[in-house]
Amino acid sequence: MRISIEGELRDMRAVWYEDGKVRMLDQKVLPHRVEVVDLEDHHQVAESIRDMTVRGAPAIGVAAAYGMLLACNNHQDLAAAAKELKGTRPTAFDLFFAVDHMLSRIGSGADPVQAADDYANTIVDRCKRIGENGERLIKDGARIMTHCNAGALATVDHGTALAPIREAWRKGKDIFVYVSETRPRLQGMKLTAFELLNEGIPHAIIPDGSSGHFLREGVDIVIVGADRIAANGDFANKIGTYEKAVLAKELGVPFYTAAPLSTFDLSIKRGEDIPIEYRGEDEVLVVDGVRIAPKGCKALNPGFDVTPHRYLSGIITETGVLDPKDVSKSLKGVKL
Amino acid sequence: MRISIEGELRDMRAVWYEDGKVRMLDQKVLPHRVEVVDLEDHHQVAESIRDMTVRGAPAIGVAAAYGMLLACNNHQDLAAAAKELKGTRPTAFDLFFAVDHMLSRIGSGADPVQAADDYANTIVDRCKRIGENGERLIKDGARIMTHCNAGALATVDHGTALAPIREAWRKGKDIFVYVSETRPRLQGMKLTAFELLNEGIPHAIIPDGSSGHFLREGVDIVIVGADRIAANGDFANKIGTYEKAVLAKELGVPFYTAAPLSTFDLSIKRGEDIPIEYRGEDEVLVVDGVRIAPKGCKALNPGFDVTPHRYLSGIITETGVLDPKDVSKSLKGVKL
Repeated sequence: MRISIEGELRDMRAVWYEDGKVRMLDQKVLPHRVEVVDLEDHHQVAESIRDMTVRGAPAIGVAAAYGMLLACNNHQDLAAAAKELKGTRPTAFDLFFAVDHMLSRIGSGADPVQAADDYANTIVDRCKRIGENGERLIKDGARIMTHCNAGALATVDHGTALAPIREAWRKGKDIFVYVSETRPRLQGMKLTAFELLNEGIPHAIIPDGSSGHFLREGVDIVIVGADRIAANGDFANKIGTYEKAVLAKELGVPFYTAAPLSTFDLSIKRGEDIPIEYRGEDEVLVVDGVRIAPKGCKALNPGFDVTPHRYLSGIITETGVLDPKDVSKSLKGVKL
Repeated sequence: MRISIEGELRDMRAVWYEDGKVRMLDQKVLPHRVEVVDLEDHHQVAESIRDMTVRGAPAIGVAAAYGMLLACNNHQDLAAAAKELKGTRPTAFDLFFAVDHMLSRIGSGADPVQAADDYANTIVDRCKRIGENGERLIKDGARIMTHCNAGALATVDHGTALAPIREAWRKGKDIFVYVSETRPRLQGMKLTAFELLNEGIPHAIIPDGSSGHFLREGVDIVIVGADRIAANGDFANKIGTYEKAVLAKELGVPFYTAAPLSTFDLSIKRGEDIPIEYRGEDEVLVVDGVRIAPKGCKALNPGFDVTPHRYLSGIITETGVLDPKDVSKSLKGVKL
């Protein structure tokens, strides 16, 4: 991704390895400040995952892989380092996968730098291919809507939902992006708009409740990310996704989710079986440290919603655009 | 409405005339402070409408009527005062109606205080009847969803969408209200939740983007207000209304707007002809004085959206619940 840092436009990743250190954009201080932090051992990497200096499941996985590399460089006990890194965010599947990848590669004698870079490159390459596959769906002059942040910050580079948008822009297509702000945590406003601004892609932030208005006024395509996709193509994503899907269907606007194949969880049959996490009410009642709601009022704060596959036009993956009505057939023979 | 003010629970209106002044609750400082402001001339009243010290079409109408009264008391040019007051908010039809009412009554020799109080009492009485007519649609145990503030703060007393809810609660029905927070200005969170809290009605604030999730989980009825209703039953209301209407239809949840007959503008044939006001982008980018968005990002901020009548189950008015498919027949012989 392109980031303007100290007045200079640089092509960079959200997490990388350089001069024996793990370096990452500090996502806690974005979008108001762009700062790179240097981490010298796996304890610091573990802390950066815990305190959300790095966020987004794929980016957390990459950070953990590099954390294992530092443990190796520093001659630490690898089993203990693996345990420490895996314990930082106990629900992040990518994290376990990345750490196990490193243990297995190092165990079989691979160069640890190569093993960690391979892991990061695989993640980035998937996103790049999602971008190429999704880009074909975006016509010149398209008005695109997205939600939350399924961008390079969360995936190290390119992004998932943002990858096709980035690719269309780099190919010279004239596009405009409606970024729904994504209450309560405002990742659309804070992170997606930040990424688009840095790439120079024309966009506007809109309140979540205005999505229907803009979809009716004229949006050509909606592309969102996915947190988990069930075997029947139903998928969980940031709260507010389901609404856009229903509205897009009603208005005849194509609606896509973009995600690597690793997002499929075939052990889950249907959307109804995906557990919905409820988060603390202060995320709703307090904005950037300021209490907005009347004292004594309560809030409900579901983190995700589930969109049935019948509202989906397609699932943009690294292998192509899958038909959501027939996911299991599309995935036949594909190694997840 | 019941408001706890200086530790005392009082039954009061949002705007009234007292000791030669227009007095109103300052809705800009709600819900954190309950303050009454005094206005001494129609310029101050115009400013109070512009800066949203008073908001909500009916309350704006009452404020404008009292503004005309002050212009009269202060021996101002009434045509100029009318023009100034009418120019404050372009979408509020009540404003024009109230100002014309005052011009006509004063022109025909009526006492201006009486004329303005009559206007206010008529508004309040209509809301009371809207409450009685709408209350019958709410069953015991109902989970209700509303949007923005179509409450007593917006209508001087009782409210429009909140009037049936208030009435159901006062009749002892067991109800629960989902209050969508209504970005960007958060009138749901700040005003509706405030009114429900003061009345003791069980409720929860929800992010706008979660409305679809909760509608699918189980809402029995949606009741919202209306800023303007066209001759065919299409209506303009706070941004975010249209989305809920489409979702409610998709999920089979009855969806009502509650509004006095004065909200009908039969000169407007269809929703497409209702002008949509765009407001400043800082309402989106800055929350309670804190800049949230990245520096350099833009926002789009439509104040209203238009809901086609086909999504409406009915229009709750002071004369009864109208069939939205046949508004002109329903209104035949009714004096607007």
